[in-house]
Amino acid sequence: MITKEEIAHAYREIQDEICAGLELADGKGKFEEELWSREGGGGGRTRIIQNGNILEKGGVNFSAVEGKLPESIKKSFGVSEDDFFATGVSIVIHPNHPWIPIIHMNIRYFEMVSENAKELSWFGGGIDLTPHYVINEDARFFHQSLKATCDEFKDDFYSKFKKWADDYFFIKHRAETRGVGGIFYDRLNPESTGLGWEEIFEFSKAVGRTFLPIYTEIIERNKNKPYTKAHKQWQYQRRSRYVEFNLVYDAGTKFGLETNGRVESILMSLPPQANWVYDFTPQQGTEEEKTLDLLKKGINWI
Amino acid sequence: MITKEEIAHAYREIQDEICAGLELADGKGKFEEELWSREGGGGGRTRIIQNGNILEKGGVNFSAVEGKLPESIKKSFGVSEDDFFATGVSIVIHPNHPWIPIIHMNIRYFEMVSENAKELSWFGGGIDLTPHYVINEDARFFHQSLKATCDEFKDDFYSKFKKWADDYFFIKHRAETRGVGGIFYDRLNPESTGLGWEEIFEFSKAVGRTFLPIYTEIIERNKNKPYTKAHKQWQYQRRSRYVEFNLVYDAGTKFGLETNGRVESILMSLPPQANWVYDFTPQQGTEEEKTLDLLKKGINWI
Repeated sequence: MITKEEIAHAYREIQDEICAGLELADGKGKFEEELWSREGGGGGRTRIIQNGNILEKGGVNFSAVEGKLPESIKKSFGVSEDDFFATGVSIVIHPNHPWIPIIHMNIRYFEMVSENAKELSWFGGGIDLTPHYVINEDARFFHQSLKATCDEFKDDFYSKFKKWADDYFFIKHRAETRGVGGIFYDRLNPESTGLGWEEIFEFSKAVGRTFLPIYTEIIERNKNKPYTKAHKQWQYQRRSRYVEFNLVYDAGTKFGLETNGRVESILMSLPPQANWVYDFTPQQGTEEEKTLDLLKKGINWI
Repeated sequence: MITKEEIAHAYREIQDEICAGLELADGKGKFEEELWSREGGGGGRTRIIQNGNILEKGGVNFSAVEGKLPESIKKSFGVSEDDFFATGVSIVIHPNHPWIPIIHMNIRYFEMVSENAKELSWFGGGIDLTPHYVINEDARFFHQSLKATCDEFKDDFYSKFKKWADDYFFIKHRAETRGVGGIFYDRLNPESTGLGWEEIFEFSKAVGRTFLPIYTEIIERNKNKPYTKAHKQWQYQRRSRYVEFNLVYDAGTKFGLETNGRVESILMSLPPQANWVYDFTPQQGTEEEKTLDLLKKGINWI
């Protein structure tokens, strides 16, 4: 039987691997680490990179927290137990280059500490891509890579989790998706998947380890493309939609703010700069128009 | 007895006066008007100014809408009737000059259309100031002006509504106020105030007409002050807190997004540019530190 300590240990290793790999890909930026502990129990390792060659602002955060669950969260989780343990790795990267996409990855494990703990435990997570400009071949490569990871574990994982991401990363008030989606999953356990705990744990680690090769490849493909001031302006505008999603809809952000998490670690997902232009309408036939047309659910990128 | 048409008419006049006055104060920017109608009933006049001499981005919006109230709003309002009418003027101004504050003003009237309509009707509104840098004399002038308006109607209005603003314009996750507050009030009717409907309506108009002289005076006081790149950076950072408040807490924004209001009119409150810097700590003895120290409830500015 895997223990929560083993899971936290593996997640910490994945955080280390990803930070090392991203520093290498960037060539200049270095992660700064902040160790923090939570009043109710546990703590984390926040790692932030700023003003790199490519990574303008990014966070690769590990946390393992425990304690009493607030009433509001108990209700939304549908659990009656009090004592919980949660560990995870969370990543958001805002590149400075408008042709390189924003990326988000999260792997997490949640457990109610009780006699029948394993019945109230699950893995969750996902990876999704938010291009400033949608590039079809990159979106295809991204989804193919995720499908390859999913297919190693279960036939229907990719199609189920791809749809879940489409539905989750959706900016309802604008009726547009945040980006080109990816995979999103929650409450995976033997009951919901038909797999054993060990296999689900392996899947969670595999998702974590899919992040680095995917993102470094997409960086390499785009980092030497030239761009203009107008491309940058569009990037700032796309980032404002990212802010809207994270502050209005994102469950992780809500959970963090409502449980009095460390504000700077939670809001590291917000971009270094975002612009709001009133009532923007793209010119016909432009890259901006093409991107807006592709921000919808249900596109088969593969 | 005042009618809802009279109220909407007066609010439209106030919108006209304020737009004319702000164009005069700016000297360059002109409001652009967008007329819109709402599927469920009613509509509005959105007026946006962008890239003026002083007003970088601002909206002065009028709306008068009617229809069926969604279940979620009925619950939060504690009403059982379906048909509602709501009219109001809403203003948010983001100036380009870091020594001129962001300002927000709202006057509104809400009515349930039923046999006992007036028992389920109220006026709400307020004005609050969000300086990038808090200037004590400006905050004092601002609060003195609001107090003068309140005092014409009822002795306890200013102290009650000042406290209400402190509590409302509060960024809970940062434990800081949005700015130096102002006044905020809701559900004013004869029962809650002891005043007649006519007097409450006069108060609502008086709040609306207090906006222009206050803001033009504060513009005049500060528009010729020199500023540096560092001051601009701080302005962008302060604006990011404004974004956080509006997307996470503001009831008007939530109401608008949940009732499928016109997104661009609702989100006109968001700044043209906002920056998030990870874990910013001001240097000791700086203007930035002084401002952060003053972002708290309960300060007697007068």
